[in-house]
Amino acid sequence: MKITELSDKTEVTVRFSEVDAMGIVWHGNFVKYMEDGRESFGRRYRFGYYDLYEQGLQVPLVKLDIDYKQQLKYGEHIVIETTWMHCDAAKILFKYRILRKEDSAVLMKAQTTQVFLNMQGELELTNPEYYMEWKRRNGA
Amino acid sequence: MKITELSDKTEVTVRFSEVDAMGIVWHGNFVKYMEDGRESFGRRYRFGYYDLYEQGLQVPLVKLDIDYKQQLKYGEHIVIETTWMHCDAAKILFKYRILRKEDSAVLMKAQTTQVFLNMQGELELTNPEYYMEWKRRNGA
Amino acid sequence: MKITELSDKTEVTVRFSEVDAMGIVWHGNFVKYMEDGRESFGRRYRFGYYDLYEQGLQVPLVKLDIDYKQQLKYGEHIVIETTWMHCDAAKILFKYRILRKEDSAVLMKAQTTQVFLNMQGELELTNPEYYMEWKRRNGA
Amino acid sequence: MKITELSDKTEVTVRFSEVDAMGIVWHGNFVKYMEDGRESFGRRYRFGYYDLYEQGLQVPLVKLDIDYKQQLKYGEHIVIETTWMHCDAAKILFKYRILRKEDSAVLMKAQTTQVFLNMQGELELTNPEYYMEWKRRNGA
Repeated sequence: MKITELSDKTEVTVRFSEVDAMGIVWHGNFVKYMEDGRESFGRRYRFGYYDLYEQGLQVPLVKLDIDYKQQLKYGEHIVIETTWMHCDAAKILFKYRILRKEDSAVLMKAQTTQVFLNMQGELELTNPEYYMEWKRRNGA
Repeated sequence: MKITELSDKTEVTVRFSEVDAMGIVWHGNFVKYMEDGRESFGRRYRFGYYDLYEQGLQVPLVKLDIDYKQQLKYGEHIVIETTWMHCDAAKILFKYRILRKEDSAVLMKAQTTQVFLNMQGELELTNPEYYMEWKRRNGA
Repeated sequence: MKITELSDKTEVTVRFSEVDAMGIVWHGNFVKYMEDGRESFGRRYRFGYYDLYEQGLQVPLVKLDIDYKQQLKYGEHIVIETTWMHCDAAKILFKYRILRKEDSAVLMKAQTTQVFLNMQGELELTNPEYYMEWKRRNGA
Repeated sequence: MKITELSDKTEVTVRFSEVDAMGIVWHGNFVKYMEDGRESFGRRYRFGYYDLYEQGLQVPLVKLDIDYKQQLKYGEHIVIETTWMHCDAAKILFKYRILRKEDSAVLMKAQTTQVFLNMQGELELTNPEYYMEWKRRNGA
């Protein structure tokens, strides 16, 4: 049976400079946390920007959807869960959850879609060989 | 007849520090551009964070959806279109388009939802009087 | 007589996301404003990152000194004055002043030093020909 | 004998979004790393923004001096050394070193000066009692 999801968890401490005038984390900083999550995933599964870049592939985001559930404060610790999801199309799908470490409250849920561009900036309509191999290597 | 949409346009020049290692604007920076759009709208229609804050209201984002259409490069000029959309629920809805100024190509479409919190951080389930008045004043 | 300074002025409105939990602009954001100033200078005198990059030159900062004079608040407008200063060594020197537009109060003074690297990342010990020419063209 | 310095070390991994179009960390991000250093110091010695804020004190930066020694790349790990330095005046002095973790190469040296403001935003000309006590508690 094939694996349809692969997950990673990483932790971050909220920085003073990430908090806005209302005393809570500015919503745009969650996009950065999601990238922290993707990078941690990339280090674990050898699927980082530069792993792909070396294969002649760029993977820009084409879709980003965030649901904010609770506010996050300065000095709080968060857990970023990043989950790769199988999909047949030539796309990379991730879903995310950000939880407050102290009480595991879900602060944010999100999803992103990335596509493959070659070095000429052209969209790859079929899954690149490198990605197919990466999936096989991970049982997906 | 009531107005169901109110719009504002503002222009921004892409900063060097907003461009990533691939030479294009990092996707997270579009969230900042959208805030630029909301602030410009707020200045025009007296609907900024501080206008609301003075009324005892915070308006955090609870939903953010972005579709990226084309990449944006260093030095390019963009037009941010921010459109308030009528909705009966106690929510603030905005839609956004970001266009490259040179050729009016649509680079991004997005939508956000904000809710009302009072100063105790409690959700306002009905439209605050100030917001109702603001709508009337603007013919909406 | 040779010109020993060249100046540019540009204006910026403080963004909500640039303000910290104390309600004032986070000090790190002044580095971004200084880059806004350098870019505006670059557009005016054809001396931007990409003008230099096309000549095979990178110009990283090696020194940055800032004196903060007064706090800056959300919604305030600032004027960024960026002044190139002549120097015989193979370096680029800029000084900066950031003023509150409303009352011309000086909020910050700063200075930066940049050096020239070639595309191999090696330090250029003498002034690149392109830079000498640029100086002549500007009467410096 | 009194202690004249107190130090802390913390580690950070360079984020993709912190790298600029030249493939190296944008210089302004070092200001953020220095804040990471100060916050880590604050957690260790109970000297964070909020510890001071609770005492009715704000501690804005009035001076920031950075010497950049070497460039920092995406994916590299850094060590931030933050050292509080004794000084008789009503000021807080920190010096910083940022080292590449792999080879301990010094990438940056810096120094900051902070002053004390009370909640009315007025400068405290003498050392606040809380700060004197904090120094004694730490043998300084």
